[in-house]
Amino acid sequence: MASTNRQFHLARLPDGPLTRDCFRLAETAVPVPKDGEVLLRARLMSVDAANRAWMQGATYRDALSTGTVMSARGLGEVVESRHPDFAAGDLAFGDLGWQEYAAVPGNSLMKQLPVTPSSHLLSVYGISGLTAYFGLREVAQAKPGDTVVISAAAGAVGTFAGQIARIMGCRTVGIAGGEEKCRWLTDELGYDAAVNYKAGPVAEGLKAACPDGVDVYFDNVGGEIFETALSQMKMHGRIACCGVVSTYDAASQPAHGPRGVPFLFVVKRLAMRGFIVSDFFGRRDEALAQLRSWVETKRLKVIEDVVEGFESLPDALIGLLHGKNRGKRMVRIG
Amino acid sequence: MASTNRQFHLARLPDGPLTRDCFRLAETAVPVPKDGEVLLRARLMSVDAANRAWMQGATYRDALSTGTVMSARGLGEVVESRHPDFAAGDLAFGDLGWQEYAAVPGNSLMKQLPVTPSSHLLSVYGISGLTAYFGLREVAQAKPGDTVVISAAAGAVGTFAGQIARIMGCRTVGIAGGEEKCRWLTDELGYDAAVNYKAGPVAEGLKAACPDGVDVYFDNVGGEIFETALSQMKMHGRIACCGVVSTYDAASQPAHGPRGVPFLFVVKRLAMRGFIVSDFFGRRDEALAQLRSWVETKRLKVIEDVVEGFESLPDALIGLLHGKNRGKRMVRIG
Repeated sequence: MASTNRQFHLARLPDGPLTRDCFRLAETAVPVPKDGEVLLRARLMSVDAANRAWMQGATYRDALSTGTVMSARGLGEVVESRHPDFAAGDLAFGDLGWQEYAAVPGNSLMKQLPVTPSSHLLSVYGISGLTAYFGLREVAQAKPGDTVVISAAAGAVGTFAGQIARIMGCRTVGIAGGEEKCRWLTDELGYDAAVNYKAGPVAEGLKAACPDGVDVYFDNVGGEIFETALSQMKMHGRIACCGVVSTYDAASQPAHGPRGVPFLFVVKRLAMRGFIVSDFFGRRDEALAQLRSWVETKRLKVIEDVVEGFESLPDALIGLLHGKNRGKRMVRIG
Repeated sequence: MASTNRQFHLARLPDGPLTRDCFRLAETAVPVPKDGEVLLRARLMSVDAANRAWMQGATYRDALSTGTVMSARGLGEVVESRHPDFAAGDLAFGDLGWQEYAAVPGNSLMKQLPVTPSSHLLSVYGISGLTAYFGLREVAQAKPGDTVVISAAAGAVGTFAGQIARIMGCRTVGIAGGEEKCRWLTDELGYDAAVNYKAGPVAEGLKAACPDGVDVYFDNVGGEIFETALSQMKMHGRIACCGVVSTYDAASQPAHGPRGVPFLFVVKRLAMRGFIVSDFFGRRDEALAQLRSWVETKRLKVIEDVVEGFESLPDALIGLLHGKNRGKRMVRIG
């Protein structure tokens, strides 16, 4: 075990797009776990748009504050345990923060059974895969034959959501930024159509891709794309709200919300629901069994975007916020 | 039977607040029913904000067009029937339009069993009562102990919704325009609190009335009041969208939607659903039996605002759009 622990502290809160100088590299001693705590060595750090959202204020968790280790969830290997549920060598997932070693309460960790490759624990068997699974099936109530539109379709959740919707018998349309990404969605991921939001008005592209309208909109972005999708919902359509990436890296919340709320909800009898995947953790095993069988039978491709090295963490997050990733982004630490 | 039939035609479509000159009085012969049609003499005409919404464009029905009889639903007595389900003397509800006699397809009518007073067929046992009932129980899934906020609380739906929520064991807060209306809501209708949206920022009044936040918001208005209620929802709160009165009497749809959509839906795991009462007509009998028992045991007051005389129709609708009514407004024709 190394004698020092590298960390990235949150040096200042961004007041616009995130920049590298918001983080400061520090070196401290490897912490000693207290009673009830577990010392972990970080293996893979999950890089999520939510990391940036936490800087904006209280969400489903407290806001981040400066001068402390940047919060992030990741996969670690237990080095030393002072909690009865964990032993050295176990794998566990939790808020380890951007550091090589973390001592955290055992009660805040989820033990993980080994999987090869272990990166799958952060992608298809982690928050991204479970979010796509429960979002489509439980929140959006997608049915065979539905036209399902997914924004941020080339992202961590989107790559799984599009494939799962197709497996469920839906027609799938992805929205993503760039021709190349869009081609990749249809050619590699089996999307029926893709709309490049950088190429022109999304409304036209979406209308061409969904001439009969949209049954299910799986929203990862909010903002104008949300407004456009809302305007093209069919009667009794359903919207699952999974995140609002379009607003996370901005100085402030948007000045106005999407037009058509609540008018179109009445006229078309739409239903909309926001969710966080942990709401469904009680049924995690059922979902994991289903996802595993799809992966093993090669019906579900696992798209991962692994960035190497602890020092890459700030750039990996900044790049993600600019749409540089394809599939689930994570940083390999050790 | 009279030999002439007075009608109000829609002379022009309003491009802002509705005015009297949008309507033109006409006199024609009493129509002769064709095969499959029923000739009705109008008794009570329902006056609804929706009448104005139909002038804006296609909603859940086609837009109204000028030069024809103004559309409106009402209660009529069958004068002559050429449809097997109806006989002279029957009461029926349907789109009779603003006229003293209407010949309409029997298939478009709903037969009504006589009730005393028959005005109850347009209020508590009609669209208003059923909208309040299904909106709270099915759409908003209100539960005992919930804090339920209702906008347009002194209106046709609101007067029933507040009382039904209270009967269901909820804490009820109404939003209405004017001190006197608000006092009436708490003193006469049993609302636990009322917020006067004309007295100052609704946010402050709502926070004072709901210090722990809002479980259920029953929205009849949209616009700023919607935005304010949304910002004060509790975790796992539910919003039932019933109508958007704030926008019906305007020149155009609002330029922007409410802030916090979809961000707050994710953070607080909110659910929202729009509905039209006819979605639930399959379960009408169950609802009517429940409403009847509440009315008969005097747990539910039936608030009606009956305007006398056919010629009052335009002013009755214009007044409703300015919030002049208390409870269900209708016009007695004959």
